[in-house]
Amino acid sequence: MGDYHQVAAVQQDALGAVQLELGANPNALALRRPFDPLAHDLEASFRLTRFADLKGRGCKVPQEVLNKLVEGLQQDYQNAAEQEHAHFMHMAIPRIGIGLDCSVTPLRHGGLCLVQTTDFFYPLVDDPYMMGKIACANVLSDLYAMGVTECDNMLMLLGVSTKMTEKERDVVIPLIMRGFKDAALEAGTTVTGGQTVVNPWCTIGGVASTVCQPNEYIVPDNAVVGDVLVLTKPLGTQVAVNAHQWLDQPERWNRIKLVVSEEDVRKAYHRAMDSMARLNRVASRLMHKYNAHGATDVTGFGLLGHAQTLASHQKNEVSFVIHNLPVIAKMAAVAKACGNMFQLLQGHSAETSGGLLICLPREQAAAYCKDIEKQEGYQAWIIGIVEKGSRTARIIDKPRVIEVPAKD
Amino acid sequence: MGDYHQVAAVQQDALGAVQLELGANPNALALRRPFDPLAHDLEASFRLTRFADLKGRGCKVPQEVLNKLVEGLQQDYQNAAEQEHAHFMHMAIPRIGIGLDCSVTPLRHGGLCLVQTTDFFYPLVDDPYMMGKIACANVLSDLYAMGVTECDNMLMLLGVSTKMTEKERDVVIPLIMRGFKDAALEAGTTVTGGQTVVNPWCTIGGVASTVCQPNEYIVPDNAVVGDVLVLTKPLGTQVAVNAHQWLDQPERWNRIKLVVSEEDVRKAYHRAMDSMARLNRVASRLMHKYNAHGATDVTGFGLLGHAQTLASHQKNEVSFVIHNLPVIAKMAAVAKACGNMFQLLQGHSAETSGGLLICLPREQAAAYCKDIEKQEGYQAWIIGIVEKGSRTARIIDKPRVIEVPAKD
Repeated sequence: MGDYHQVAAVQQDALGAVQLELGANPNALALRRPFDPLAHDLEASFRLTRFADLKGRGCKVPQEVLNKLVEGLQQDYQNAAEQEHAHFMHMAIPRIGIGLDCSVTPLRHGGLCLVQTTDFFYPLVDDPYMMGKIACANVLSDLYAMGVTECDNMLMLLGVSTKMTEKERDVVIPLIMRGFKDAALEAGTTVTGGQTVVNPWCTIGGVASTVCQPNEYIVPDNAVVGDVLVLTKPLGTQVAVNAHQWLDQPERWNRIKLVVSEEDVRKAYHRAMDSMARLNRVASRLMHKYNAHGATDVTGFGLLGHAQTLASHQKNEVSFVIHNLPVIAKMAAVAKACGNMFQLLQGHSAETSGGLLICLPREQAAAYCKDIEKQEGYQAWIIGIVEKGSRTARIIDKPRVIEVPAKD
Repeated sequence: MGDYHQVAAVQQDALGAVQLELGANPNALALRRPFDPLAHDLEASFRLTRFADLKGRGCKVPQEVLNKLVEGLQQDYQNAAEQEHAHFMHMAIPRIGIGLDCSVTPLRHGGLCLVQTTDFFYPLVDDPYMMGKIACANVLSDLYAMGVTECDNMLMLLGVSTKMTEKERDVVIPLIMRGFKDAALEAGTTVTGGQTVVNPWCTIGGVASTVCQPNEYIVPDNAVVGDVLVLTKPLGTQVAVNAHQWLDQPERWNRIKLVVSEEDVRKAYHRAMDSMARLNRVASRLMHKYNAHGATDVTGFGLLGHAQTLASHQKNEVSFVIHNLPVIAKMAAVAKACGNMFQLLQGHSAETSGGLLICLPREQAAAYCKDIEKQEGYQAWIIGIVEKGSRTARIIDKPRVIEVPAKD
C-alpha cells in the first residue's frame, strides 16, 4: 500500500504540471508551454524519444516483407469471408481487409458495417502530451481516409518502458494518456478501454472503431482517368523529428548544419508536431462534399508506398503520377544532405499521422483545397494526376518541391 | 526485389513445415507434432520465449499502479460519456469501460452496442503456432467473460523482435499468424486487419469486436448472496511455463527437482498450453443457459486480482470467498518450492488465457459444471461462495488444492 500512495502523490504533481502547461485553454496549442522535464522534477536531459531505439528507421516491418508474411493469411481470410457472406449476408457489402487502411466487416444487424483500424508506434517527439495527441490522430487517420468522420470509440495501447524510473513513468504516462484522450475528445469520441504492458521501448497506439451504414464510408477504389491527387499535409515529419534530435548530437548535426540553421530545425519540428497532432477529420468530411473517388493516409511507407497501395486497389486501369512534393520548409535540403537515408524526394520517407492523399474529380479539387484552408487555416495541394495505366504510382523525375513554412 | 524473392522462398518452406506439423487435421491438437526448430532449418537451441525478457514477472503494469495511471482518464471519460448519452441515446445502456474486461459502447444505430477488447503480451511458450492460438484465445476470452459468444472480427497486433534473424522471422511469424487465425476460425470469426511493427521483444495480441443487442451480453454486476463461484480452467499456467523453461537452466531446476520430475513438468507444460489455447466460448454460452450473474476471465492479475475487481463492481453488498484452488498437477508443489515468487496459493500468480470465474445461482452451478464437461471433456470447479460483504474477495486461510491431471 505504501507504493500505492506514493504513486498517488506523484500523479497529483504530474497533473498539476499538465494544468500549468495547458494554460487556460487546454485545446489552444499556441498557448501551451513546451514540455519541460525540470518542471516535473525530471532530469533536464530527459528525452522521451530515447525510450525507443530505431536509429532513424521507421517502426514498420518493410512493406514487401509484410506482404509476404500476410499472404497466406489473406487468402484464407478471403475464402472464409466469402463463405460467411453466402451464409448470412443478404446484401453484398465489399469486405475490405488487410492492405488497406481500415477493415470493414459486415455485421449481423441491419446492413451495418464495423469499420476499424489499429496502429501503434514509438515516441518520436519529446513532449509526452503531444505524443499522445499524435498517436491518437494517427490512429483516427485511417478512419478518415475511408471517409468515416464519426468514431464510435477508441482503445488505447500503451507499453511502459522497462527503462523508465518510477518517477519518469508517473510523470510521462499520464501526460501521454491525457494527450491521447484530448485528441479523442476533439474527434468527438472517447477512450473506453485499452491495454498497458511493460516493454523495453515505450509504445503508444490505439484502436478506432465505428459502426456505420455503407453510405458513410468511401471505398477507395474508384479513381478515374483525369482525376487529380490532393495531399492535405506537408511531407517531411520524419526528417524534422530526426533533425531535431541531432541538435543534441554534434557529429550528426555537423552533417546538416551547412544547409539549415538551428532556428529552422526548431521551427520545422514544431510545424511537424502541429501537423501530426492535427486530425484529418475536416479533410475527410470534405471528401463527401467534393465527391472523392478514394483516399489513403500517408504514414510509415511514405507518400509513394501508400500511393502505390492505393493505385493497386483501383477498379479502373489507372496509374498515379506525382508532380509536386509539399515539404516542411528546409526539410528537403536536410534530406538531400543526408544522402539516401530518408529518400524523401523519392517518396519513401516515413510519415507519422500524415495527410490524406485523395483522388478527386479535376473540377472539384481546387474548391476542395480552398474549402479546407477556409475551415482549418491549413493549405492542401494538388500534387499529381490520374492517368490510364496498370495500377501503379510514380513520382516524376524532377518533382517540384513546395516549401511549406511553419504557421505563425 | 532480390530480398522480396528470398522472403517468398523461405515462406514456402515455412508453410511446408506447418503442413507437416499439422498432420491431416489442422484442428486436432493431439495429432500435431510439437514445434521442432530443426525441421525449419533453425538452430536446435532456438527458443521463442527468449525474445522477451520478463524474468518470471507478468507483462502487465501492476494493478494498483495502473489504477492510478488511468484514474484521471476514467473520470473525464465518465463525464463525456454522460454528456454524449444525454445527447443521442434514447435508451439507457450501461456504459462499461476501463477496469472491466470489455468496453461496451452504445451506438448511433438501433439500440446496438459495440463490445470490444484488446490484449497483447510476449511469447510464453516456444511453439509459435500454439503461441498464436493462445494469444487469440486470450483476446477472445474477454468477450466470453461478458457472455458474448459471437465475435464479429479480430485485428492482430504483432511485434517482430529486432533480435530475430531474417530466417527466424520468416519461420516464426507466419506460424504465429496461422495459429492466431486458426483459433479465430474456431471461434467463428476472422482476422480482418492489424498492425505489425519491429520491437525488441516479440509481441503478439489482438483486438476482438462485436456489435450486439443488449440481451447478448451479461453485465457482470449482479451477484447475490448465496451464489457460488465457478472456475472453468485450472490455475498454474505461469508456474508451468516457467518450470518448463527451467529444464534448460540447471541452477533453477535444482530448486524444484526435489518436488517434481522432468516428466511431470513436461506434462504440466502441455496441459497448460492446451488449456491456454482452449476457447472460453462454451463456458460463455452456458452462462446464458444457467443464468450467470456475472463473470470475469482470470489473466495477468491472478485469480484473486480478478476476483477483487469483479467484486468491486457488484451492485449488491457482496463479497467473494474462495475455498478451492484447482491447479495443474504438481504446480502447487513447484510454486511452494519457489517461496514467494509466484504467490499461486495466495491467488496472485498471473494466468494467461485462464478460465472464466463465474457467479452462478447455487442451484445451477452443478448443472453448469456437468454440462461443460459433457460438451468439452474438461472439468469446471465450484471454488467459492458469495457472502454478504463490502465488495471484496479473499481466499480462505488453508484453501483446498485440487490437483488437475493432464488429459490423456
